[in-house]
Amino acid sequence: MDKINLKNDYNAVGHPLILKALEAELDHKFVGYGTDEICARAKDLLLSKIDKPQAAVHFLVGGTPVNLISLSAFLRPHEAIIAPDNGHINVHETGSIEATGHKIVTVPGEDGKISAASVQALCDLHSDEHMVKPKLVFISQATEIGTIYSLKELKALREVCDKNQLLLYLDGARLPSALTASDNDASLKDIAALTDAFYLGGTKNGLLFGEALVIVNPALQSEFRYLMKQRGGMLAKGFLLGIQFLRYLQDDLFMEIAQAANKQADRLREGLKVVGVEMVTTTSTNQIFPIFEDKIVERLKEVALFELWGKVSDHETAIRFVTSWLTTDQEIERLLMAIMKAYDKK
Amino acid sequence: MDKINLKNDYNAVGHPLILKALEAELDHKFVGYGTDEICARAKDLLLSKIDKPQAAVHFLVGGTPVNLISLSAFLRPHEAIIAPDNGHINVHETGSIEATGHKIVTVPGEDGKISAASVQALCDLHSDEHMVKPKLVFISQATEIGTIYSLKELKALREVCDKNQLLLYLDGARLPSALTASDNDASLKDIAALTDAFYLGGTKNGLLFGEALVIVNPALQSEFRYLMKQRGGMLAKGFLLGIQFLRYLQDDLFMEIAQAANKQADRLREGLKVVGVEMVTTTSTNQIFPIFEDKIVERLKEVALFELWGKVSDHETAIRFVTSWLTTDQEIERLLMAIMKAYDKK
Amino acid sequence: MDKINLKNDYNAVGHPLILKALEAELDHKFVGYGTDEICARAKDLLLSKIDKPQAAVHFLVGGTPVNLISLSAFLRPHEAIIAPDNGHINVHETGSIEATGHKIVTVPGEDGKISAASVQALCDLHSDEHMVKPKLVFISQATEIGTIYSLKELKALREVCDKNQLLLYLDGARLPSALTASDNDASLKDIAALTDAFYLGGTKNGLLFGEALVIVNPALQSEFRYLMKQRGGMLAKGFLLGIQFLRYLQDDLFMEIAQAANKQADRLREGLKVVGVEMVTTTSTNQIFPIFEDKIVERLKEVALFELWGKVSDHETAIRFVTSWLTTDQEIERLLMAIMKAYDKK
Amino acid sequence: MDKINLKNDYNAVGHPLILKALEAELDHKFVGYGTDEICARAKDLLLSKIDKPQAAVHFLVGGTPVNLISLSAFLRPHEAIIAPDNGHINVHETGSIEATGHKIVTVPGEDGKISAASVQALCDLHSDEHMVKPKLVFISQATEIGTIYSLKELKALREVCDKNQLLLYLDGARLPSALTASDNDASLKDIAALTDAFYLGGTKNGLLFGEALVIVNPALQSEFRYLMKQRGGMLAKGFLLGIQFLRYLQDDLFMEIAQAANKQADRLREGLKVVGVEMVTTTSTNQIFPIFEDKIVERLKEVALFELWGKVSDHETAIRFVTSWLTTDQEIERLLMAIMKAYDKK
Repeated sequence: MDKINLKNDYNAVGHPLILKALEAELDHKFVGYGTDEICARAKDLLLSKIDKPQAAVHFLVGGTPVNLISLSAFLRPHEAIIAPDNGHINVHETGSIEATGHKIVTVPGEDGKISAASVQALCDLHSDEHMVKPKLVFISQATEIGTIYSLKELKALREVCDKNQLLLYLDGARLPSALTASDNDASLKDIAALTDAFYLGGTKNGLLFGEALVIVNPALQSEFRYLMKQRGGMLAKGFLLGIQFLRYLQDDLFMEIAQAANKQADRLREGLKVVGVEMVTTTSTNQIFPIFEDKIVERLKEVALFELWGKVSDHETAIRFVTSWLTTDQEIERLLMAIMKAYDKK
Repeated sequence: MDKINLKNDYNAVGHPLILKALEAELDHKFVGYGTDEICARAKDLLLSKIDKPQAAVHFLVGGTPVNLISLSAFLRPHEAIIAPDNGHINVHETGSIEATGHKIVTVPGEDGKISAASVQALCDLHSDEHMVKPKLVFISQATEIGTIYSLKELKALREVCDKNQLLLYLDGARLPSALTASDNDASLKDIAALTDAFYLGGTKNGLLFGEALVIVNPALQSEFRYLMKQRGGMLAKGFLLGIQFLRYLQDDLFMEIAQAANKQADRLREGLKVVGVEMVTTTSTNQIFPIFEDKIVERLKEVALFELWGKVSDHETAIRFVTSWLTTDQEIERLLMAIMKAYDKK
Repeated sequence: MDKINLKNDYNAVGHPLILKALEAELDHKFVGYGTDEICARAKDLLLSKIDKPQAAVHFLVGGTPVNLISLSAFLRPHEAIIAPDNGHINVHETGSIEATGHKIVTVPGEDGKISAASVQALCDLHSDEHMVKPKLVFISQATEIGTIYSLKELKALREVCDKNQLLLYLDGARLPSALTASDNDASLKDIAALTDAFYLGGTKNGLLFGEALVIVNPALQSEFRYLMKQRGGMLAKGFLLGIQFLRYLQDDLFMEIAQAANKQADRLREGLKVVGVEMVTTTSTNQIFPIFEDKIVERLKEVALFELWGKVSDHETAIRFVTSWLTTDQEIERLLMAIMKAYDKK
Repeated sequence: MDKINLKNDYNAVGHPLILKALEAELDHKFVGYGTDEICARAKDLLLSKIDKPQAAVHFLVGGTPVNLISLSAFLRPHEAIIAPDNGHINVHETGSIEATGHKIVTVPGEDGKISAASVQALCDLHSDEHMVKPKLVFISQATEIGTIYSLKELKALREVCDKNQLLLYLDGARLPSALTASDNDASLKDIAALTDAFYLGGTKNGLLFGEALVIVNPALQSEFRYLMKQRGGMLAKGFLLGIQFLRYLQDDLFMEIAQAANKQADRLREGLKVVGVEMVTTTSTNQIFPIFEDKIVERLKEVALFELWGKVSDHETAIRFVTSWLTTDQEIERLLMAIMKAYDKK
């Protein structure tokens, strides 16, 4: 039997309905670089969902490019990005932001999130031209460890940004998973209302590839396509993104796909709770971080694929389970059974 | 009736066999970032075709990223790129190379190509540390205006590079079209033997997206994946590139697709010759640059889509026709008929 | 006897009055980074001379840093600089501008200058986001080959800049020499009125080091000191620049020093004319570019130090003579005698 | 009476003997860009002091440029710098390193220093191409808070660098102060033997300006002058650096100047000890960081100029005193008197 693959949510070609949409256009010829009709329709559909008719939408391939192109487009050379110290953009992007010339200044990540208070404290420290000027707060929804910001937390961040003339940018690689989490209270419209720019991820939620960057703040919209082109982010066959996003947004397919992933995560969480497994943190999205004794981890490797997240004590390790729309009821059951069995043997 | 679309060779989703290959993997789960089995197989297949078992292959999305990531990986900050003054990389990439910190120094483009003599002359001019240090010769095969380097010309460039300790880099966005051109005498093996690095393009020859960078020179291979990641060029679903390239290379499908495009270009060239249409330059690949009187251009716009290439005189304009594997016999016939009719009316 | 040194105008420690001003402050203690009282007084004095009380002045060390810091501060990443193809910034700065990420697009240099018409033509060519966006016209007064823009030419450039929303930047490494040239009709006030930013050079006119950047356009002034610091251009002992510039500007010493250099250049020009020596171009500043037969050049090397400018024919070479405030009447006479003697021998 | 200026060690024009050396060359004419005879002599003299005849020496203006030019010359784009989290280069250079594209990864500063163990731990964490590659350890001698590395600590760092293929770079802005500290056991030769590159600072020890970069590792020496020029660090009047450094090195004037500063710091330290003042850390160089109650700080402001270093508790503040060769016995006595008086009043 195949191992249960919970390594990540970008391990498959894509959702069948997305591939079908591409197939349907096999005989069609498009104009290039995302200036086609279908991209326009996909953008309009997205705008209609966020109540921001003046926002600018750009489709790009991958979170790293979206982030590095956006941030370097929005900032002057001496302006810096505020991010959580353990955040992906600070640790796991091979210095992609610094390679565009900008420093990331960090605040402590609390459950993967940053607080308005820590942003204010950091701004207070940066007083003159011998230090970079913090200018943009970078958050992820859901965060890298699967937690989500509440509407209240987001509003507090908006407030501290306004007070310090900072931009608020939201990395939405897993935004659909956050939007469909059981305890989420921040809607897509809220996100659009509270941020200067954000992106709605597709790659980790059923698209072959693609993220939709939404630049809400008009002051940041100017000549953005120049920057996309310059940094290598303008796809010649831009219509491939338009085709996928149009289908993704139609009938809120993106919500449906995320719900499927979250549902399996919920079931897994429930099961782990019953078994009494400890967690690194409480999540409600498609990522779960249980802590197991090392010997249990070894046994689980025989039935499932997952990431090791880090040693918790000398004999315990945190691991990461990620569900996707492809995860099945059977797989979760098999996994829970294996866990219970491993515990029994202990 | 639809207009005949000869605007470019990246105007369609992709070749049906490529999409079929993706579809065949819908239920499969892969490891991320191009470290999967199918990428490995595609790389091996490519290496087997070029007799360079020690070369490194990396799959990337789009020519702009391939070029900017490679060149900035290969060069120190003060080292410059030698390119034709009218070349794409100098004019139509929104300064993507300069954005990584490197200057492009230009030599006159002769039929889109650069000569060994002009490279030597430019090296002679750059004598000390008050000027950049030319370090890499950038050529395209086929060139932006559809011409190709002969094997003899490529050997002369290799020689001048060796003499001046320069690297030779070949942009192969349309390499398949060059390889299958009727008058081509430089094989894929020749390209691999003569360059330090080159890429085999897919986007303009039937893939949804994808280019295969081949780093032949071992001194340039080290830690290249760091640079890919840093510049946003490492696709999370790297296996999408592996799936496509494996099929593209199997049974030399990439040659077959290019042949189909070239065949239609040959037919069109033949017809234009019969009508007596002048050309900007003689090509043997899938791009053709006829010169028409402006009023004829206007009439052709009613039947076909194409790029305006530039005014040639006050009443004449050069245009660009690009064929692809989707171009049909009927389309070429319809176009030639339209041209003849337009001439008659004159 | 020592050879007559006409190699350049930065070959000596500095004008005695400048060194004396430094000496006078040996016991004084200053606050750092150019925030001292004496810098403030020097800035005020400069502002009073240009009728632009709202302009921002920054003192920096060297033309390369002034240019690279200013231009990268003023431009967004996709914006490009328009410069003459043979200009210093394009050829002799080792890609310092490109190293900050910006492309230089060139127009033909006509006598070292660029015309409004060529700027317009270049703007017309740059039409969309696949090309960089020309945003700043870079000129030098005097130019690298000693010529100067007339007031009329400067006004025409201002006009074409306004029409195309371009910034006008003037490199004034040798601005004092231009201001004191016999045929100059563009005053310091004119320069300040017509440009968005310019600098008044000191290094080539008697200072130990130092250039005064004047940012006239308020939109470009914001947070400039951050950029100075970031690019390594903020001198810890900024007061050294203040001390020098205060003295340099008092009693218009900068004009006096330049006049002394120009006077000797005028005498040399006059003498060359009498002898019938051809010139590369007609200049009125402290640089002269005579053309000699190669054998005459060889003989002149025995009496003087100068730069070879380039071969003009197979037996003729253009050379460069640069005078400074240290050049004496006797030196010019000796040189002219040597030239006449060399001609006689011919 | 003037306030006692202990704000920093770059608050005066320069040591009289240095200015005298400049004056002595007023009538001399030099070749440009540091290629003159006097620079060559100064370099030779420095090399003779470090037993590294093959090392390369370059004179530059200011620590920020030396650091940013060196590090960006030595590293490939994905390679990162290891520095103490509270170090100058990470906090107080306005992101000058990141502006060249490189990330700084930090380890905890322990008394301003970093330990071999923390370097190893950081290397262990950076395992693959999704993270930057740590490549260079950046240390300062003396550190920003006046402490110094012992020879044993430097050897341990060299060892951990060798083990992990890291470069060791030493910022010597205050190296003379370290070399002359009472408890120092690492000689200039030791520094040269243990590092890949370091610089001997002049600006903070009596020069008008100037730092001497020594590139010991031959692999890092190639074409360095290109990088100097490109980043704006090549002074036209390079001989000004040569003149100063020749005098600075002759008769070990640089040691003498530093000794004078340290001597006054020692006296001040002694006095503070007697009074019973607490320190942030124990130093032996020309920087002292006493902690005072806020009301005492207020009283001291009436007699002296100094930097506030930071709040230590709600009613205590650490301040910084910096002595220089200009600090007099009388000034230290006056200051100690004032401190004692302030304590009495308490």
